[in-house]
Amino acid sequence: MRENAKHPERHAERMRKKQAVMRERIERADKDQGVLLVLTGPGKGKSSSGFGMLARSLGHGYKVGVVQFIKGKFVTGEDRFFRDHPQVDYHVMGQGYTWDTQDRERDVAAAEAAWVEARRMLNDDSYHLVLLDELNIVLRNEYLDLDTVLDDLMNRPAMQHVVVTGRNAKQPLIDIADTVTEMQVVKHAFKDAGIRAQKGVEL
Amino acid sequence: MRENAKHPERHAERMRKKQAVMRERIERADKDQGVLLVLTGPGKGKSSSGFGMLARSLGHGYKVGVVQFIKGKFVTGEDRFFRDHPQVDYHVMGQGYTWDTQDRERDVAAAEAAWVEARRMLNDDSYHLVLLDELNIVLRNEYLDLDTVLDDLMNRPAMQHVVVTGRNAKQPLIDIADTVTEMQVVKHAFKDAGIRAQKGVEL
Repeated sequence: MRENAKHPERHAERMRKKQAVMRERIERADKDQGVLLVLTGPGKGKSSSGFGMLARSLGHGYKVGVVQFIKGKFVTGEDRFFRDHPQVDYHVMGQGYTWDTQDRERDVAAAEAAWVEARRMLNDDSYHLVLLDELNIVLRNEYLDLDTVLDDLMNRPAMQHVVVTGRNAKQPLIDIADTVTEMQVVKHAFKDAGIRAQKGVEL
Repeated sequence: MRENAKHPERHAERMRKKQAVMRERIERADKDQGVLLVLTGPGKGKSSSGFGMLARSLGHGYKVGVVQFIKGKFVTGEDRFFRDHPQVDYHVMGQGYTWDTQDRERDVAAAEAAWVEARRMLNDDSYHLVLLDELNIVLRNEYLDLDTVLDDLMNRPAMQHVVVTGRNAKQPLIDIADTVTEMQVVKHAFKDAGIRAQKGVEL
């Protein structure tokens, strides 16, 4: 299911840059550097893994940024837990107005406003890690321009880590990522039994 | 690669109990109940996902327990971040003495001492979630008796969530679990390039 960005020349340029970065990294080996991690697939644990990495960074005393590209108004446990931490810059897409809409233009506007926050973090090397939670969903829905997102990711500070979550990651994002994990469902008894998500584990 | 516990009669008994629990749950549907989640596979994100779920529980104000069945003396970011939280009961296997040993008896003793802590949590319904980080490694090495572990998991309070992480989960554990996610490696550029794990993301 390979799929290319809309602008093949920009894709080629990114891949050339990616190769140069990788060559440089291999030469330096064993040095610290920023990694782009993508957590995708249908299984459980993508967002929670991103938030666990956030906790790790915070445990080491670093400043981190979060943009949650989620739909809906419910307050999640991770929201409550992390957003008041002094080292966390926390944004939720569309917060402040109703997101449960069939209005695509409004969804696009909310996504673009959220990306302004993400780009600000991706331009600031004081953020050790930036978590772009459920960004893949927004890209899949084409609420954001993929090339713009990929360029911003590629042009971030060299030492900055980025974690992107959400099922159905776009292939061009996988191409520029350093580490990609696919979460597979081995078993999901509750889903089959129609039992709701459990607060404090899944929400 | 199906594999059975050493005591088939106990396995059969557990599976009968599991079926009864599932029937009851389906009848109640839409009600809250404790889930047993297993996060396994070779991909990145298993432990971090467990710690993200921990953060969610804490965000909702719940008390949680952690037992880390890890080898080595380094202090992880999650350790630093979570262990002093007033709602977290945090134990690390073998902490306090050197774990880097070839002495199997000592490893077994450390694992058994850690399981005493785990069992205490699994007998106490004030713990909303118990994270048994890297337990699968210890089970794979046969440092703990599998049947004992499975029985303790099955006999925990009905509302308690448990998250078990680590690659190579044993099949009998998968059998009694509610939700199982397998993390697959799609890409791990750094590993191939011999670049070390990044503090604040992987450690």
